[in-house]
Amino acid sequence: MLDLQALLTSISDRIYHEADWGQPAQYIPDLAEIEPAQFAISVCMADGATYSAGLANQRFTIQSISKVFALIATLGRIGDQLWARVDREPSGTAFDSIVLLESDKGHPRNPFVNAGAIVTTDALLSGREPKLALAEFLHLVRAMTEDDDIHINGAVARSEQETGARNKALAHYLASYENLFNPPDLVLGTYFHQCAIEMTTIQLARAGRVLAGLKGSPRVMSLNHARRVNALMMTCGHYDGSGDFAFRVGLPGKSGVGGGILIIAPNVASIGIWSPGLNFYGNSNAGTRAAAYLTQETGWSVF
Amino acid sequence: MLDLQALLTSISDRIYHEADWGQPAQYIPDLAEIEPAQFAISVCMADGATYSAGLANQRFTIQSISKVFALIATLGRIGDQLWARVDREPSGTAFDSIVLLESDKGHPRNPFVNAGAIVTTDALLSGREPKLALAEFLHLVRAMTEDDDIHINGAVARSEQETGARNKALAHYLASYENLFNPPDLVLGTYFHQCAIEMTTIQLARAGRVLAGLKGSPRVMSLNHARRVNALMMTCGHYDGSGDFAFRVGLPGKSGVGGGILIIAPNVASIGIWSPGLNFYGNSNAGTRAAAYLTQETGWSVF
Amino acid sequence: MLDLQALLTSISDRIYHEADWGQPAQYIPDLAEIEPAQFAISVCMADGATYSAGLANQRFTIQSISKVFALIATLGRIGDQLWARVDREPSGTAFDSIVLLESDKGHPRNPFVNAGAIVTTDALLSGREPKLALAEFLHLVRAMTEDDDIHINGAVARSEQETGARNKALAHYLASYENLFNPPDLVLGTYFHQCAIEMTTIQLARAGRVLAGLKGSPRVMSLNHARRVNALMMTCGHYDGSGDFAFRVGLPGKSGVGGGILIIAPNVASIGIWSPGLNFYGNSNAGTRAAAYLTQETGWSVF
Amino acid sequence: MLDLQALLTSISDRIYHEADWGQPAQYIPDLAEIEPAQFAISVCMADGATYSAGLANQRFTIQSISKVFALIATLGRIGDQLWARVDREPSGTAFDSIVLLESDKGHPRNPFVNAGAIVTTDALLSGREPKLALAEFLHLVRAMTEDDDIHINGAVARSEQETGARNKALAHYLASYENLFNPPDLVLGTYFHQCAIEMTTIQLARAGRVLAGLKGSPRVMSLNHARRVNALMMTCGHYDGSGDFAFRVGLPGKSGVGGGILIIAPNVASIGIWSPGLNFYGNSNAGTRAAAYLTQETGWSVF
Repeated sequence: MLDLQALLTSISDRIYHEADWGQPAQYIPDLAEIEPAQFAISVCMADGATYSAGLANQRFTIQSISKVFALIATLGRIGDQLWARVDREPSGTAFDSIVLLESDKGHPRNPFVNAGAIVTTDALLSGREPKLALAEFLHLVRAMTEDDDIHINGAVARSEQETGARNKALAHYLASYENLFNPPDLVLGTYFHQCAIEMTTIQLARAGRVLAGLKGSPRVMSLNHARRVNALMMTCGHYDGSGDFAFRVGLPGKSGVGGGILIIAPNVASIGIWSPGLNFYGNSNAGTRAAAYLTQETGWSVF
Repeated sequence: MLDLQALLTSISDRIYHEADWGQPAQYIPDLAEIEPAQFAISVCMADGATYSAGLANQRFTIQSISKVFALIATLGRIGDQLWARVDREPSGTAFDSIVLLESDKGHPRNPFVNAGAIVTTDALLSGREPKLALAEFLHLVRAMTEDDDIHINGAVARSEQETGARNKALAHYLASYENLFNPPDLVLGTYFHQCAIEMTTIQLARAGRVLAGLKGSPRVMSLNHARRVNALMMTCGHYDGSGDFAFRVGLPGKSGVGGGILIIAPNVASIGIWSPGLNFYGNSNAGTRAAAYLTQETGWSVF
Repeated sequence: MLDLQALLTSISDRIYHEADWGQPAQYIPDLAEIEPAQFAISVCMADGATYSAGLANQRFTIQSISKVFALIATLGRIGDQLWARVDREPSGTAFDSIVLLESDKGHPRNPFVNAGAIVTTDALLSGREPKLALAEFLHLVRAMTEDDDIHINGAVARSEQETGARNKALAHYLASYENLFNPPDLVLGTYFHQCAIEMTTIQLARAGRVLAGLKGSPRVMSLNHARRVNALMMTCGHYDGSGDFAFRVGLPGKSGVGGGILIIAPNVASIGIWSPGLNFYGNSNAGTRAAAYLTQETGWSVF
Repeated sequence: MLDLQALLTSISDRIYHEADWGQPAQYIPDLAEIEPAQFAISVCMADGATYSAGLANQRFTIQSISKVFALIATLGRIGDQLWARVDREPSGTAFDSIVLLESDKGHPRNPFVNAGAIVTTDALLSGREPKLALAEFLHLVRAMTEDDDIHINGAVARSEQETGARNKALAHYLASYENLFNPPDLVLGTYFHQCAIEMTTIQLARAGRVLAGLKGSPRVMSLNHARRVNALMMTCGHYDGSGDFAFRVGLPGKSGVGGGILIIAPNVASIGIWSPGLNFYGNSNAGTRAAAYLTQETGWSVF
């Protein structure tokens, strides 16, 4: 029988032993200086137990993982209307690419590339004050986690706001195709704050329970919505490294440039991983390897 | 409890009732004239039983579904060396697009777009006579199906050979980047013949059993290889409609322009569907809907 | 001998008779409502004489023609340093395309596509107040024209500022590649004001005399600079319609979305044309035809 | 007064002194081994005199310069009908790029990129035997040159035929859009032979006299056609280096990968230059510099 605690510990040991960390994201000043040799993994099981190894109480900004929560919040608010504004296809291009937006006439490929996430946040705003939308958003994440000790790192949010020229370009470009209904600055302000939510791997794993359909997880979304979000995480969750993640890990996942990864093993487990050094695609380098080790040992691949 | 036979019959009835067939592929003369109002579905279960509805004994050319079998054959022959020549990422472009090949310097995005399939077939040839490679290929498909009554439709193969200008362009383009080791004409001859294999939905479902990991299925590949092929089918199996198929159906699948779809429910079932009318992305229109109905009713989605 | 006055009158008559006007630019509110059935042409000759036909005293915003004057001003200020930030090649894409900026890493193809013009204006600003740069700019245009009755239409400038989402996207995108040194909003404010300069065709023709190297024209730039600006107008002056303009007209020219065209016949004449209806490429529809008629009759083509 | 002979000699001396040759084209085996430190220049003047310096009797394959002669031959045969199949715009991409062909649906940007030249040759063939079309083509070049000692280098033609995978891809791609009427192999055979015509710089300069509209040049085309060919050479003659050539040289020109450049100074001179080392864009490195020196000294720029 699987001794999950022993397995997580051995994976953590292996990751530290390999010492192949990658480099933290350089374009966000507050992230650039983080020590890359850090690792954490947490797993919530169907029976309610949570197992962890490494720095599982270390907070990090979830960055693009917030796109999953924003998608859930927006689907809850406007449902399938969102798909009139964002497609559901892998893009084959980098997370911040603007190229396809031109041929696609301002219609982003999926809610997990930056352009699609900006449209999703715009839909979540719906003309409301950013504060109100952010409060609702934070409330959702806390409810999914059943933990109110989750907060936004204002310094990181402001740091991104000052340096996020590429995201500003995307927002104005979307506006030029009338696929942004709120002022670009308001949308981006909301977006940068949502990205700057800080969580631990324990909290991240707990937040994913409802997506994994684990018993006893808070009822914040239908099973049908959860399945569809998982499908999008599988095909689009790792940008132009999504195919490779599916190939190597075999589970839906969503990475963030802060080094976090949320991984869902439907009906089995919800997994949070963190290591701030990134690989070529902008996904956690050690974290991706840890995910592969985990599924190799557990056979949790959906395939 | 699930009455699968009744379900398949009701899906078939619904498809015929909806009468929303799409148009058969126009660019292959032998396919263009097929009556679109045809449908078949077959499902192999873990207990060895096979259920069908519609024209389950009607043969059709499997076309791009053959890319799955070619990938299995080539992985069996050269293993992971293939990945030095083909990537594993969704392309975000049409099945026959040449655009990314230029920026990617002749390295196709995955083995299921035409360029990647041509490289896969080239690797399968390995300097051998096309006849020999085709014989091995046909042998594999028959072994997977446990049925020797599977043949190549020579007329369709020749018809594609005469009209396949786009594929010829792809092959010569790959050659210009030295990512084709055999003469383009030999590779394409082999490729067009492999695409022209005729199967019924019963045979297609049976061929997929090993990918689904069903007990008693012929031992032609490792579980590890099967999982990885399934992962590729999930992220890349429906070209630029892959994300939508994952979203709506939730299972790995591979479509062919002949109207066939092979769908894998890991550990549960292997499914063959056919209806020759196509949707916008070049995937079977009624077949894709039938797949969605099936997973909605059975809950077989991996998510 | 050429009776230029008679020729211009006959061209004007022909344009009104053909009544093939095209549609004014729709994306700038103040331009969208202009009556399209208007035409003017003015020609300055080497002997100092100016000939006109049509509404040669009607003011219109010169829009992208201002890119020529901004280029002259910037070359005068920083010389060939500009070419480290902007290339000199035709783009093969639309004036407001962002696609090539991604593969070219924020380095615009030429100073006459919007992205290149924004970089040129940024270089002109050089950290100064927009007011100061605009004053210098206006001073240059007036000096070239030898006419101080040239002003900026503030309403049009503001109208563009409110609606110019695409240009904002370009500016922020350039900033993301650190190819914008001043704040995007300041650069765009300057840019929109420079585009909103109003001139008549008489003034436009007079402003071009120095580019044509006509005797007695004000000494605002070297002959060498003038030739190079003319070369850029020839290869890049009409966006993705530049080749066609060279083919049909055979002279360097620069069009504006306000319907103006500045055309240079080196050593012979400087020509201003206006008609606010646009063709497919965003160049004056009747104006382009008038230019072709003029060179056919005069043989002024440089080829 | 201009002492042209002295100028050409000094340019040749300077080129040899600078010894900045570039590298000969590597993808055509017969070209790859050529000694790069070679240079020749010849100029035909309006008075019938021809001046030369360097290796002006050395034969070289004209390669893409043949596209100019093919365009003249095809315009002579089918006139403006050609423009229904090829556009007249700079492409902004490399000479052998296939990317724009996909978005442009098989319609090449201009007759001087490879795809456009292949369509032009296809139009010249018009269902005739390649031998016949080549004979007509060679006859035209000899007539323009008034020299029958111009021949095709069969070895080079065959060498390209064996290695021209990229051109084969372009031809089949054009065929897939039904913009090739003859079998791709026949068209390419003709194309490779036309590219393998050998000329000296003296012959090249003489061939260009009609384009320059020099008195006494053979009447093989109308002045109107000549002007339009010159316009295309200006905007599209040096691939994605066309803007730079116009900027630095100020004359229409067409380069070949064999190191030749044909340059037209309308009404003044026709110029042939050769040096086999290439620059980044695939144009003669020393030859382009020599052209710039020539126009700087003579003031022959059309601008």
